[in-house]
Amino acid sequence: MPVEHPPVAEDRHPETRTGVWLVGARGSVAVTAVAGCAALAAGLRPATGMVTETPPFAAAGLPRLDSLVFGGHDTAVCPLPKRAEELTAGGVLPQGLAVAVHRELADADAEVRPGGPQPGDTRGDAELVAAFAADIAGFTARHALARTVVINVASTEAAPATGTTRLAPSSLYAAAALRAGCPYVNFTPSTGLHAPALRAEAARAAVPYAGRDGKTGQTLLRSVLAPMFRQRSLDVRAWSGANLLGGGDGAALADPAAAAAKNAGKGRVLADTLGHRPEGEVHIDDVPALGDWKTAWDHIAFDGFLGSRMVLQTIWQGCDSALAAPLVLDLVRLLARAHAIGLTGPRPELGFYFKDPDGGPAALAEQYEALLTFARRLGEGDDR
Amino acid sequence: MPVEHPPVAEDRHPETRTGVWLVGARGSVAVTAVAGCAALAAGLRPATGMVTETPPFAAAGLPRLDSLVFGGHDTAVCPLPKRAEELTAGGVLPQGLAVAVHRELADADAEVRPGGPQPGDTRGDAELVAAFAADIAGFTARHALARTVVINVASTEAAPATGTTRLAPSSLYAAAALRAGCPYVNFTPSTGLHAPALRAEAARAAVPYAGRDGKTGQTLLRSVLAPMFRQRSLDVRAWSGANLLGGGDGAALADPAAAAAKNAGKGRVLADTLGHRPEGEVHIDDVPALGDWKTAWDHIAFDGFLGSRMVLQTIWQGCDSALAAPLVLDLVRLLARAHAIGLTGPRPELGFYFKDPDGGPAALAEQYEALLTFARRLGEGDDR
Amino acid sequence: MPVEHPPVAEDRHPETRTGVWLVGARGSVAVTAVAGCAALAAGLRPATGMVTETPPFAAAGLPRLDSLVFGGHDTAVCPLPKRAEELTAGGVLPQGLAVAVHRELADADAEVRPGGPQPGDTRGDAELVAAFAADIAGFTARHALARTVVINVASTEAAPATGTTRLAPSSLYAAAALRAGCPYVNFTPSTGLHAPALRAEAARAAVPYAGRDGKTGQTLLRSVLAPMFRQRSLDVRAWSGANLLGGGDGAALADPAAAAAKNAGKGRVLADTLGHRPEGEVHIDDVPALGDWKTAWDHIAFDGFLGSRMVLQTIWQGCDSALAAPLVLDLVRLLARAHAIGLTGPRPELGFYFKDPDGGPAALAEQYEALLTFARRLGEGDDR
Amino acid sequence: MPVEHPPVAEDRHPETRTGVWLVGARGSVAVTAVAGCAALAAGLRPATGMVTETPPFAAAGLPRLDSLVFGGHDTAVCPLPKRAEELTAGGVLPQGLAVAVHRELADADAEVRPGGPQPGDTRGDAELVAAFAADIAGFTARHALARTVVINVASTEAAPATGTTRLAPSSLYAAAALRAGCPYVNFTPSTGLHAPALRAEAARAAVPYAGRDGKTGQTLLRSVLAPMFRQRSLDVRAWSGANLLGGGDGAALADPAAAAAKNAGKGRVLADTLGHRPEGEVHIDDVPALGDWKTAWDHIAFDGFLGSRMVLQTIWQGCDSALAAPLVLDLVRLLARAHAIGLTGPRPELGFYFKDPDGGPAALAEQYEALLTFARRLGEGDDR
Repeated sequence: MPVEHPPVAEDRHPETRTGVWLVGARGSVAVTAVAGCAALAAGLRPATGMVTETPPFAAAGLPRLDSLVFGGHDTAVCPLPKRAEELTAGGVLPQGLAVAVHRELADADAEVRPGGPQPGDTRGDAELVAAFAADIAGFTARHALARTVVINVASTEAAPATGTTRLAPSSLYAAAALRAGCPYVNFTPSTGLHAPALRAEAARAAVPYAGRDGKTGQTLLRSVLAPMFRQRSLDVRAWSGANLLGGGDGAALADPAAAAAKNAGKGRVLADTLGHRPEGEVHIDDVPALGDWKTAWDHIAFDGFLGSRMVLQTIWQGCDSALAAPLVLDLVRLLARAHAIGLTGPRPELGFYFKDPDGGPAALAEQYEALLTFARRLGEGDDR
Repeated sequence: MPVEHPPVAEDRHPETRTGVWLVGARGSVAVTAVAGCAALAAGLRPATGMVTETPPFAAAGLPRLDSLVFGGHDTAVCPLPKRAEELTAGGVLPQGLAVAVHRELADADAEVRPGGPQPGDTRGDAELVAAFAADIAGFTARHALARTVVINVASTEAAPATGTTRLAPSSLYAAAALRAGCPYVNFTPSTGLHAPALRAEAARAAVPYAGRDGKTGQTLLRSVLAPMFRQRSLDVRAWSGANLLGGGDGAALADPAAAAAKNAGKGRVLADTLGHRPEGEVHIDDVPALGDWKTAWDHIAFDGFLGSRMVLQTIWQGCDSALAAPLVLDLVRLLARAHAIGLTGPRPELGFYFKDPDGGPAALAEQYEALLTFARRLGEGDDR
Repeated sequence: MPVEHPPVAEDRHPETRTGVWLVGARGSVAVTAVAGCAALAAGLRPATGMVTETPPFAAAGLPRLDSLVFGGHDTAVCPLPKRAEELTAGGVLPQGLAVAVHRELADADAEVRPGGPQPGDTRGDAELVAAFAADIAGFTARHALARTVVINVASTEAAPATGTTRLAPSSLYAAAALRAGCPYVNFTPSTGLHAPALRAEAARAAVPYAGRDGKTGQTLLRSVLAPMFRQRSLDVRAWSGANLLGGGDGAALADPAAAAAKNAGKGRVLADTLGHRPEGEVHIDDVPALGDWKTAWDHIAFDGFLGSRMVLQTIWQGCDSALAAPLVLDLVRLLARAHAIGLTGPRPELGFYFKDPDGGPAALAEQYEALLTFARRLGEGDDR
Repeated sequence: MPVEHPPVAEDRHPETRTGVWLVGARGSVAVTAVAGCAALAAGLRPATGMVTETPPFAAAGLPRLDSLVFGGHDTAVCPLPKRAEELTAGGVLPQGLAVAVHRELADADAEVRPGGPQPGDTRGDAELVAAFAADIAGFTARHALARTVVINVASTEAAPATGTTRLAPSSLYAAAALRAGCPYVNFTPSTGLHAPALRAEAARAAVPYAGRDGKTGQTLLRSVLAPMFRQRSLDVRAWSGANLLGGGDGAALADPAAAAAKNAGKGRVLADTLGHRPEGEVHIDDVPALGDWKTAWDHIAFDGFLGSRMVLQTIWQGCDSALAAPLVLDLVRLLARAHAIGLTGPRPELGFYFKDPDGGPAALAEQYEALLTFARRLGEGDDR
C-alpha cells in the first residue's frame, strides 16, 4: 500500500463495514452525504429525509450508518472539508457541522482518486476502466470492507455525441464498478450502465444495480400529482415547468444536451401515469445567484366536468443537495444489503428513488409499496 | 297522483331506474350534476371527472346515467333551467348546454319540494322528518323507481348551537332518508347523520350511507402531498392555507361556525397522514367577485436533511361545482349498487371522495385502491 | 370605385371621421378592438382598460369612438364575425357581444384587403408598398375620412434573415403607411419602421409614429416592480420569467427568432431601470390548450440589507387580446389627434404603451406622467 | 453620571453626533439596525436597502452612519449581542457579523433602559412619561449629542381598550419624545402620537415627526401595483392577502386587535389609490416555524376590456427585520437633519416609508419624488 494513504482507522464493526464509492466525491451531493452520515452516526442530527431510518426498514438488515466508509473519484481537487465550508456559507449545511465532522470529511478526502478522462488523457476506454476498477478494489481491500457500493453523483454529462465509439465518462465508471464486482447506482441522468456497449456486461453481472436520475423535487411532485389527476379522471391538457438553479448542476444543465437527458425523465413520469403526453415543456435555467437552492414552477392546465378549465400551479423551493444526500445513503444501504443476500441485476423495486427507474410503477404511492415489500424481502434474506 | 305533477316520461329502462334526491336541488352543484348527467347520457360531452365511467368500474353493475331520475328539496325557488343559465354566464356550464338539456332540467325542477324548516315554521322535528320522508317516498313511487339515493349538496350550515335540542336541517333530511329506506350521502361538512340523536337510528338502518364533505380541491391535494412528505421522511413544520371563493359557498363559509366544520376536515387529513399536527391555519374568504371559481393557496414549510428549510406552495384554481358534480353522480351510482346487493351501514370504502370519511386510510392512493376493491365487490354482487 | 366594395354607411360625423387600418385585421387583437369599439360606442359595456376614456383625456380633442372606421390588411380569410364567434367560445369576448355588433364586424370585414407577400408572390418590395399604400388611400377616400391611422397588430414575424435585401412584411406595411401619409403604430415586436432601409424615409415623414411592442402583461409588471427595487436600493440579482400562451401568438413566438425580438424588449426595461442586467432568462412556450389566455411567471431573487436573500414571485393570468385591444384604440386616437395638430416623428410621450418605446423614461409612473402631459398638449392644439 | 454607565467612547465627530433612541431596543429590527449600522460604518458590507446612501441623498447634509449613537427602552432583558447571535442562527444576520460588531452591540445594550409599564407598575401616565423623557435626556447629555431621534420599533400593541383613560405604551414613549424635545418616528402600527390626548401637544411641538407603520413588504408591493391598475384603467374587483410570519411580530399580530391596526394600513393604500375598496380580506398568521421570515401572498382579481376576468398573484418572501432596519436608519438620518434645519410637525414628505403616512400621495412613485424633493430641501438647509 503506498505511503501517501493514511492509516486505516480502527474498526468498530470490522466484519460488516461497507464501502461507499462516490463518483463525483467532491461535489455538493457527495459532501452533504458524507457530512450528514457522520452527523447522524454521532447523533448530532435527526435522520430527517432518510427513508431507511424509518420503522419499516428497521429489520431489513441494512448496514449501520457508522459502518459506512467513504471514498471516490473526482476531477476536482478542492478537498471535502473546504467544500463543506462552502456549503455551510451557502446554507446547505447547518452552522458548525463542517467543523464537528471535519475528521470524517478529511478521511473521505484521503480516499478520493483522480477521475477522468482528463483533457489530454491518452488512455483508451479499456485502460481507464481498468484503472478505475483498481482504485475501487484497492479501497475495498485497504479497509477490509465487506463490499463497496459505487454511486454516481457527478454533474450531469452531455449526451454522447452521435457516432462516437468512446464511452461517456459515467459509463466508464459504471463499467469499472462491474469489473470490481460492486453494486452500482446511477443517481444522475447521465448514461452510466445504459450505454449499449455495456448491455451484455450488465446482463451477466453478478451484482445488483439501480438507476437512473434521483427523483428529488419537481419529478417527485409529478409522481404524486399525475396519479391524482388520473384517479379522478381529470383531463390534463398541458403540464409546463420551469427550473431555476445555480450551483454546478445549473451550469451543467444549461447545456441543452445535458438538459435533454434530464427532461426526458421528467416527461416520462407524466406519459407513463397519464397515458398520454400533455402539451408543455420543461426549462432548466442556470441562475448562479441561487447557489444550491432550486426553484421549480409547474403549471398544470386540466379540464374537469363538462370541459371546465382549471389550473394547478406548484412552486418548489428546495436544496437539491440536501434532498439528494439522504437518498444516496438510502440507496447505498439497500444495494449493499441486496448484494449481501445475493440479489443481482436491475432492481425495479427502487423506482421510488428515480425519475427513470428500471421498470416498476410510475406512481409514487405504488413505488413506496414496492419499496416496503423489498425491505421485507431484504429482512428475510431471500436470495432467490 | 296529484295533478300538479307532470306525467312520468316513458321509461327506457323501467326495471332499473334509480332516483337521485338532491338536498339543495337548486344549488350550483345539483344543477351541474343534473345538466351534466343529461349531457353525458346524450353523448354531448365526454365523462371527464367521473371516476365511475373509467374502465375499472365497467363491470360493477352501476346504474346507467340515462336511468337516473332527479328530484329533491330546496328552500330556494329559482327554477333549475334559470339557474343553469346563470351557471353558463359564470363559466361553470359550457355555452349551449343549458338549452340542450332544458327538458331534463325542467323535469328535475318539477320534482323539487320545499325544504325547511323555513323561518316561522311551527312544525317540530318529527313532523318535518315525516314530511320530508313522504316527499321522497312519493317521488320513488311516482316514478316506479328501484330505489332513491338521497344526497346532501346544500350550502354548509352553521354548527348547531350548543344546548339546542333541535336537529340541524341537514340531520332532518338525513333522518328522512333513513325513514324512507334510502341510501344516504352527505357531500357537505354539515352534521347530517353525525347528530348524536341519530346514532342509534343510523346503526340499525338497513341502508348504506357515506360521508362526509366532498374532497374536491385543497384537501384532495393534501391527501396526495402529505403522504409524499411522510414517505420521504421529510418533516412538515407548517402547513398554511387560504381559500377564496364566491358563490353561495363563499358566503356560507364566511360564517366562522360553518368554516370551523370545514376546516376540521382539512386539518384531519394532515394529522392522520403526517402523524402530527403541523403549525398553520386555514382561512376561507368570501369573495363574491370570484363567483363559483375558487382559488386555494397552500404554503408548506418543511425540513429536509440536516434541518435544511424548504418550501412547497400550491395554487389551485378550480370550479367547485364542476369538481363536485361528477363525484355526486359517482356516489349515487355506487351507493345505489351497494343497496341493490344488500350492503348496509357506513362505507369506509368511499373515503376516496371525502374529507372526513367513515374510517379507512387517509392517503388518496390507498383510498383509490380501496375504491377499486369495492368496485370489484359490487360487480360480484357480494351481499354479505 | 369597384363594385365589390359595399356602399359607404351614412356618416354621423362626416367632418371628423377617422380611419383605423389594422395590419392583421382578422387576428384576435384586431377583432377584439373592432367589436369592443362598437360595444363601447353603443353603450353596451363600460370602457374598462381604455386609458383615453378616463377624465385626464376628456379635453384632449381625441376622435370619438363612434367616429372610427375600420379596415385593414390580412392574409387570413376567415371573416371578422366568424372570428368573433371563436373569440366568444374562447372566453375573450363576452356572450352575446358578437351578435350585438355583427354589423360593425361585417363592415370592417368588407374593408379588409389581402396582405402579403403571399407565397409565390412575384412582386418586389416597391410594388407591394405601392399596392398597400393604394389600399389605404382608397379606404380613406372612399369613406371621406379626415385621416387614417395604420397600426400593426399582426402576429410577430421572425427577425429578418441576415443578408437579405428584402424588407420584412411589417416594414412593407410601415412604408405603405408613410407613403399614404398616415400616422403609424407598431404594436408588435416585428421590425416595422425600424428597418435600416426605412430610416431616411421615417426621418422626413410628416406624420407622427410610435412603437414598438405593446406592453400588456409581464413587461407592464416589470415596469412598476423594477423601479420599486431601485427606489428602495434593493439589489436584484436574478429576474427569470416563463410565459405560457396559446393562440396565434404562442405559435409565432415558439419560433426562437420571433421570441428573440420579444425578449429583447422584456430585458430592456430591467436593464434601463435597474442600471444593470440581472441574471435570468425569459422563456415563451406555445401551449395551444391555453388559447388566448396567457400565464406569465416571474421569479425575482434580490438581496436586502446585509445581503439577506429575498424572493418575489408574480403570476399573471390574462387575456392578451383583451389587454391589447383597448390600448390599440387609445393609440389610434392619440396619434390621430397628434396628426391633426401637426405633430410629426417619433412620439416618446407614448412610452407608457410600449416595451421598446422611442425614448423616454422606463418606469411606468414616469411614463404615465409623460402621457398626461402629452394629453394636455394635445388639448391645447400645440403644433410646434 | 451613575457608575453603572460605561465611559463614553472617544468621539470622532463630537460636534455632530446624533442619538438614536430605539423603543424596543432589543427586538429584531433594532438589533439588525444597530449591527448593520456598525457593519456599514466599518465598510464590512455594502449599503443595500438604505435609500439615504444612494446618490440623490449625498448632498442632503445627513448625519454620517459612524456618528450615530444607539440607546433605547425595552422590557426584555436579553442583551443585544445575544440577540444578534439568535438572528444569525435564524439567517437574518450574516455569519460572523455579530462577532465583528460585538463592541457596538454591547455599547448600545449598555444604554438600554427598562420600558414600561410593566405588570404591577403603580406609576401613572404622567410619571411614566417623565421617567422615559429623563432617560432620553440623560442619554443625550451623557454622550453630548447634537440631538436624539426617538423611533418606535417595538412589537405591535393591541388597540387601546375602549373607554380607557390610560395612554397606550407607544403613546407614553411618543409623549416622552416630545417632552425631551426629540424628533419622533413611529415605525409600527401602534398608536404613538395618534392618541387623541396627544393631539394638542403634537401640534405645538417644535420637533418634526413621522409615521406610521413601516412599509416593508406586502404594502410596498401594493403601493406600486395599485397605481398600475389605476393608470391602465383596469377594474380591480378583489384584492385578498395572506401573511405568514413567525418571530415576535407573528405572535403579536395573531392578536386580532393588533392585526386590525395593521390591516387598516394595508387596506388604506388600496382605497386611496384605486378610488374604491375592492372585495377581499387580509389575514396574518403566526407561524413560529418561519422565524423572522415572512411570506405574503396576494391575489388580485381584476376585470379588463369588455369585462374579461384576469388575475395577478404575488408571493413575497422576505425578512422583515432586514427590510425594516435600513429604513429605520434612513428615517433617523432624515429627521435628524430636518430637526437641524428647524423643520417641525408632521412630515408628509416621508410617505415613501409608511403604510399610513401623514398625508401626501399613496403611489410609491410619487412618494419617491416627494422624498427626493425633500432631500434637496434638506440639502439647502431651508428652515421655513
